[in-house]
Amino acid sequence: MNDSIEERPTPAPGNTRPGGRTARTRAAVRDAVLTGLSEHGYPALTVEYVAEHSGVHKTTLYRRWGSVEGLLADALDLASEDAWTPPDTGSLSGDLRALAHEVVGAFGDPAAGAAPTAFIGAAFQSPRAAEALHAFYTERFRRCEVVVTRAVARGEAPWGTDANAVVQGVSAPLFLRLFITREPIDGALADQAARAVLAGVEAGAYVPA
Amino acid sequence: MNDSIEERPTPAPGNTRPGGRTARTRAAVRDAVLTGLSEHGYPALTVEYVAEHSGVHKTTLYRRWGSVEGLLADALDLASEDAWTPPDTGSLSGDLRALAHEVVGAFGDPAAGAAPTAFIGAAFQSPRAAEALHAFYTERFRRCEVVVTRAVARGEAPWGTDANAVVQGVSAPLFLRLFITREPIDGALADQAARAVLAGVEAGAYVPA
Repeated sequence: MNDSIEERPTPAPGNTRPGGRTARTRAAVRDAVLTGLSEHGYPALTVEYVAEHSGVHKTTLYRRWGSVEGLLADALDLASEDAWTPPDTGSLSGDLRALAHEVVGAFGDPAAGAAPTAFIGAAFQSPRAAEALHAFYTERFRRCEVVVTRAVARGEAPWGTDANAVVQGVSAPLFLRLFITREPIDGALADQAARAVLAGVEAGAYVPA
Repeated sequence: MNDSIEERPTPAPGNTRPGGRTARTRAAVRDAVLTGLSEHGYPALTVEYVAEHSGVHKTTLYRRWGSVEGLLADALDLASEDAWTPPDTGSLSGDLRALAHEVVGAFGDPAAGAAPTAFIGAAFQSPRAAEALHAFYTERFRRCEVVVTRAVARGEAPWGTDANAVVQGVSAPLFLRLFITREPIDGALADQAARAVLAGVEAGAYVPA
């Protein structure tokens, strides 16, 4: 249906510029991957499905992405390139709460959470998906660390606080319930997770011993 | 290889007694499921594989367990029936540390963690596996709550402390690294997780607001 964004077998010069035809193709392919994951999950995702829903020819997909695993990994890589920054509410308490509520927003509703859930599930089956998931989430938590850096600067957290442990600690109980105990999550649990970690920070329990 | 534990199409009276032939069959089937999961993962697990490795005839497996999903769910149900109890070191600090170290022991080594990891992965693909995983882990964490009950009785935790949130909170950062950020875990991380939750407990952050 989208012949206009289909690539030629040999990209012409200029096709790789940001926002150009290659970028549009990549985004269309990513969208088709996300739709497929949301609607059918990873085991059912095929190059044929992505070709049909992106309008990009199957031979182009195989040439540039190699396989379903490659398509999945690139969709995650593309997600890593977004401009997302962590909340900046003015206090550590507010920032930790906002971070926890973002997890509830992203996963608490089954429709919204279908694609990221499928990425997490795919990592159990595909080492390449696992590597892409690792890159995505370690980078995401790295971006969150500024929340703690700012708190230290404001005197809300002790110098030496392990920023990575703090921001992972806030999300962790929510992910545990989503994918291990498979219990529902909500705003109250987000608040609880943030409150517990904040107390730990204030007590110096996130300063390495 | 194990014809002696193969069931007849119609079980004779007495076969369902605990420790009897049915129990042995079930355990042999469970062992084959665990071996299959550890060696090949959930997507590759088949009734044929379980038949071959348990010595139980395929028609018996289909009749009693219905499908691979049924086999997987029953293996988890059987795991729930073990006699596991949480550590009792005499202090909340010691118990939380021991709980965290049990996660490292169970999952930190790829070989030891292969079967439980496969169960967690299967839940992304099979609603029945997800239900069995939910039952297993909610029961496991329920058993852990006594750690907090004892701490409250000893005066180490405030009255009203949410025991479930505490015991899930200790494991959560380790599971996050295992299956979301896909980073390694070790004893130092276990100590850190226990220390952070202990500080939260002592500050009253696990008493519902």
